[in-house]
Order: sequence, then C-alpha cells, then structure tokens
Amino acid sequence: MAVGNIPFPTMPALDGVRLGTTMAGIKQAGQRDLVVVELPETATMAGVFTRNAFCAAPVQVAKEHLAACREQQQAPRYWLINTGNANAGTGAQGLEDARESCRTLAHAAGVPAHAVLPFSTGVIGEPLPMQALLAGIAPAFNACDSQSVAWEQAAAGILTTDTCTKGASVDVPVGDQRITINGFAKGSGMIRPDMATMLGFVVTDAGIEQALLERLLRETVDRSFNCITVDSDTSTNDACLLAATGRGAHVVSEADIDAFTRGLEQVMVALAQAVIRDGEGATKFVTLEVTRATTRQEALDVAFTVAHSPLVKTALYASDANWGRILAAVGRAPVAGFDVGRVVIDLDEVRLVESGGRAPGYTEEAGSAVMAREEITIRIDLGRGDAGGTVWTSDLSHEYVSINADYRS
Amino acid sequence: MAVGNIPFPTMPALDGVRLGTTMAGIKQAGQRDLVVVELPETATMAGVFTRNAFCAAPVQVAKEHLAACREQQQAPRYWLINTGNANAGTGAQGLEDARESCRTLAHAAGVPAHAVLPFSTGVIGEPLPMQALLAGIAPAFNACDSQSVAWEQAAAGILTTDTCTKGASVDVPVGDQRITINGFAKGSGMIRPDMATMLGFVVTDAGIEQALLERLLRETVDRSFNCITVDSDTSTNDACLLAATGRGAHVVSEADIDAFTRGLEQVMVALAQAVIRDGEGATKFVTLEVTRATTRQEALDVAFTVAHSPLVKTALYASDANWGRILAAVGRAPVAGFDVGRVVIDLDEVRLVESGGRAPGYTEEAGSAVMAREEITIRIDLGRGDAGGTVWTSDLSHEYVSINADYRS
Repeated sequence: MAVGNIPFPTMPALDGVRLGTTMAGIKQAGQRDLVVVELPETATMAGVFTRNAFCAAPVQVAKEHLAACREQQQAPRYWLINTGNANAGTGAQGLEDARESCRTLAHAAGVPAHAVLPFSTGVIGEPLPMQALLAGIAPAFNACDSQSVAWEQAAAGILTTDTCTKGASVDVPVGDQRITINGFAKGSGMIRPDMATMLGFVVTDAGIEQALLERLLRETVDRSFNCITVDSDTSTNDACLLAATGRGAHVVSEADIDAFTRGLEQVMVALAQAVIRDGEGATKFVTLEVTRATTRQEALDVAFTVAHSPLVKTALYASDANWGRILAAVGRAPVAGFDVGRVVIDLDEVRLVESGGRAPGYTEEAGSAVMAREEITIRIDLGRGDAGGTVWTSDLSHEYVSINADYRS
Repeated sequence: MAVGNIPFPTMPALDGVRLGTTMAGIKQAGQRDLVVVELPETATMAGVFTRNAFCAAPVQVAKEHLAACREQQQAPRYWLINTGNANAGTGAQGLEDARESCRTLAHAAGVPAHAVLPFSTGVIGEPLPMQALLAGIAPAFNACDSQSVAWEQAAAGILTTDTCTKGASVDVPVGDQRITINGFAKGSGMIRPDMATMLGFVVTDAGIEQALLERLLRETVDRSFNCITVDSDTSTNDACLLAATGRGAHVVSEADIDAFTRGLEQVMVALAQAVIRDGEGATKFVTLEVTRATTRQEALDVAFTVAHSPLVKTALYASDANWGRILAAVGRAPVAGFDVGRVVIDLDEVRLVESGGRAPGYTEEAGSAVMAREEITIRIDLGRGDAGGTVWTSDLSHEYVSINADYRS
C-alpha cells in the first residue's frame, strides 16, 4: 500500500499522441504488460538513462536509436515498453531481442526501426520471452488511443512490484496559449536513480527545440528522480524520456522557458514522490531537507547517507524516535572538516539536536508524536554555507524484506 | 543466532594483564555491563577510532588520554568499558561524564586519570547513568583476574545486541620464544567500521615499540575490521585497541615482525568474522572476493557495493539465486571505464556471469543449491588489473528489521 493517496489524474489528450496496451502474458496472465506510445512526426525528444555499467539491452538500443534519429533528423515515433522482464544481463541475445522487438513494431507502424525506442522492466537475467512479446505488439499497437483512460492503462502496463499507477499532469501558460505536460512513471524497488528513475515518460504538446529539451530534462531530473531512494540500488534499466510534440505553443522566450521548467519540475517531482510513496513495503514518506551546506552535492551526500541508513529506516518503520541513529548517519556522511557542534536537526517542528547533542527542550513524547506520522520531514542544518538539497525516501519494513525475499517465487 | 559455531577460545593468561567485570545495572539487571582491563606499566598501546564526525564522548577522551600518555611517556594502564549506553550525541555533559568515570577508576587504582581510556557502547543520545556506572567501578576493579574465565566474562560484559561472545587467541614464534595474542570484540549492528570495529581489544605479551605497534594495528585493521559490513552504518563509538605488555619476547627483526603481523591478522580477521557471523538477524555468512581490479580500493568499492545492496541481501536471506541483483550491484559500483563484458562472477563453484550475461553452463538448480548454504563466497573477477580485496557480510532478514524496529522498546 502506498503512503498517502495518489490517485491517477485525468490526462488531457495531446494531439498526435496515442497509447495502447495489451496483456501479452510476459508478466502474469490477466495483467497489462506491453505498452506502445505513439508520438507525432513533429516531436522532439530527450532521454536520460541509468549509469549502471550493466546497463540493460533495451537501454543501449534506446540510446542508439535516439542518436540515429538525431543524426538523420527524424523524429523518434514510438516507445515500446514491457514489464515482467528487464532484458538485463542477457548479453548479445538481449540486444538482438530488443532490436527485433523494435523492428516488429516499426514494420506494423510503417516507420524505420530506429524510430522505435524499447524499454523493459522486471526480473534481471532471464531471456525476454520473445514469442509472447512479439505476438503482443500488434494488439498493443491496434489498441492505441488518445483518451485519458489510455494514459492510465499505459501507466498500469509498466508496473512491477508497484501497488498503484503513477501519473501527473499540469498545464502551463506559454505566451497567450496554454500547454500541457503529461507524465507517468513506475518504480517501487531497486530505486536509487542515477540520471533517471526506473521508467518515466513525459509528453508535452509544447514545441521545444532539441538542445533546450535535453537541458530541461537533465535539470528537472536532477531535482526530482535523482533525489529519491528506496533502497540505494540503482537499476540496470532506469530511463526517463521527455517528448515535446510541437503541436501546441512553442517555448522560446526566457519567460516561457521558466514557466515550462516550473511545470515540468512539478510533474517530475510528483512522479518521483509517487515512486517513494509506493516504495516497496513503505509505511512512511520521508523528506530529508539539508540546508546551509557548502555545496548542493554536499547537502545531497548528507541527505542520501541518512536516507540509506538501515538503522534510520527501521527506526522510522517502528515510529521510534531513536534520533541518535539520525545523528550517527549524519556523522558518517562524506563531508570534509565537519564541525558537528554547528549541526541542528529537526523532526518536523521538534528540535532534536544542537551543540553536538540532544536539544535542551527535546522530550521523548514530542519526538514520538512526530515519528508516529505517516509523512515526516527531517531537516538537517549543517551551519557551513548557503547551499541545500532535498531527498525523498521511505522506511525499511518487514514488508520490504518479504517482497524482496519472495520476488521471484 | 550466529552463523556457524564460534566458541570462545581458552585464553592463556598474560603476565600483568587482569580483567574484571560487574553487573552495574547500566544495561539490564543481571547482565555484565562494566569491564576493567588492567595492563602493566611496561605496555605500549595503539588505537584506531571511528571516523564518524559525531564521534562519541568516550572516543574523544580515549584519544586525548592516549595522546597525553604518549606525551608524558607513561603507559596507559586501564581500559574502562561499559555497554548499555554509548555516551554519544551527549554534548559537553557526555565528555564530563567520560572524564569523571576515568578519574574514579584512576583514584581506585592509584594512577593518573589519563592512564584510563574509556569506551562505551549501546543506545546513542541518552545521558550515561553515572550513579550506576560510578558505583560499579570499584567492584569491577576488585574483580580483576588474569584467568581465562576473566577474558570470557570481559567479552560478555561489552555485548549489546550480540548473541554470543567473540574471542580469538593465537601464539606466534618470535626468535626462540613464543608470544601470545589474545583479543575480544563486540558488534552485531551499526557495523561498517571505518578505521575500527564497534569495539575490539587485543593484548599481546610481546614487546613492540610504539610506532611499529601503531603501524601494525592500522595495517591489520585495514584487512579485518575495515573489511566487514552488516548494514553500512558506521558507528559513533568504533574503537580497536592493541596493547603489547612487553613482558614476553620483543618483536624487532623483520622476520619477527612478519610472524607477529600474520598472527595479529589472524586474530583480527577471526574477531571481524565473528562480528559478521553474529550480525543482527544474520542467517548467512558471505565472503565477497573481488579480484583483477585496478587497485585494492576499487576492489573494496565493488565488494562493499554488493555487500550493502538490500536486494542482494534479501535474495541471500531467501536463498534465492537471483543473480541479476548481484550483477546490478556490481554495475552500479563506483568504477570508472567499467567494461562489463570482462566481468566474471562465481557463486562458490558455480559460474553465474560472463560476457555481460548469464554464463552458458549455469542452471537455476546449481545456483539454488549454493544459495541454500549458510556460508557462501561470491567471487567477482573484474578482468582489469591485478589488485584484489575481500569483504565479509551478512544477509538482510526479517529478524534484522525486528531487532532494529524494537531495539529501544
């Protein structure tokens, strides 16, 4: 069960964008597991991908195809996404399987193979079940539709251990028009994105030229998907794609770029937070705000050290105000010349730590009251500089162990 | 329950070394929780301490007193160790409490206060219960004895969530004599030592001059306590002390230094492995051997990345040969210019991964048979250079979550 209510929003249709799903039998019988997203010929596209060295075959092929489209000045036209199998750690056969999947959809759609970008998620190291997957491509393609329900079905069709679909939509003024940004994502475990999330797909009807689109994606991913962690495990299949159809208003002026960036960040942060709310076994949604650091990287290093601490995460699960564990985690963060006497730590409105120890006004009762909440903010003021950073994470529960001890069985 | 049988060895008495324990009521009624170790005036001593910035008060005082002894060319004479309270995150009062504890034992023993080094372990952030602790010092001092049972009681008197005592003893030829190295340690959770373990105490009857003793301690700690992890959480209270009484043979020649170093490393590794075997909730003892790395640090980085992966640890707990998680963890290790096509991964005698994917001869049956074992070696050949490193770790079980969700209650 996800922490907090994250209903799937009503997604406005975007001109030229259609989504189709099917139950191809890759994951489990009776579950949507294959998704086709169609984009118009006018679209520009940017992508960020996992930095895991064992990067999955579809990620390699998606990068190749994106580069080929750029080189030949053609629009990438399709995302082909399956769940139930990550096609990672599958060597040369995995690459061939990803390419064959693209060719099959390209043939049905009458586009070149490199106009199809493949994405996979699920168990690592098993060969892609090609018979089921190839057989599912035509039904998914034929089901393509632009209505809101097609977006929600697509969001459902990429889930693995997720317990709910994850979507976000905003509209943003651009000049005297309004543009729309729709996004959906999946992710619950193996979540410590490093350049992207497990899988995130965002489409806008704005017109945005390629280089600008790439910059905006990188910037907003760095403030959303790259600021979350469930379990510190960066996936082999992380990818986040952003397409701009060019059918709506064009984003060119500084003011429009600012407005678009704010809207995009809103969608990205909503999706990233939805991944954490639905983190495997999560019972808490925890915001780590680090302030007065020397650099943003330093702030993030401290935040991630606390967010990855199994002892902090189990204390959160237990609603135990064992704040010494937070202090110990802050203390082991990779920060040079750390003066812990200047560190101030707050748990929501309750001051925990100052002057190297427990804050004078702190009571166990006040700490426990905050820890009992489902949503908690831990604020860490390093007293060193004026940079900051925020990370979102979940707790470590029995359910997490159960999910991951039983995942393949 | 610890993984494997780790009986406490018979400890030979060391001339001039006595150990006393008492039940001071700091931890729980009826449990040994206060330990005094007495060393002779001829002893040299070296120590390594946690690099956690929120370093506990006793660690700060122990470092100060060790430096004061060195400056005044006096031998440190006593280790005063309590469990049940870490005296960490306790600010100025914590420092004063640690100093007062030293003064009290120093008074009873007729030595200067700086000849006493204090150590604490247990819950972080609570004030040290000084009344109970001070009242326990005289009984512990008066109980001092040199017999083997005194060593075992001392090892018992420093435990926290440990389920068993941890000791090791070797004897080593030095010239035509033999010297003895006795050690004991504690640790089960918050185990990712960075300079030392939770607490480790090693005493030899050898004569070793100060600078050499310090070097040998650093070197052997780097190959033992600094190569283990239960949960990646470096403690505020880590310390490892090595004392050489100087009552036995003196270690001076290169050959003697080599022999001593081998013996010392044997004791250190046995203690470090005992900590992992008794890791909180551990059901597996896992050795990560990384070979053909460019540098030892690179090998350790890869080994620790795998050892810290919650997904690898839960798969180990489930005896699930989900080797894709090992591959994904290796792939996210901080290694520049990683060619995953050259990586070979073995699980005991079973080859898992080569050429970027599953090894051709691999069968699920063979992988599952290895994963069902209590003791497993994961070998990762990076195919890049000729350096290597070994790390020991445990799995992540329901019991780990239970222990840490309930620790204070």
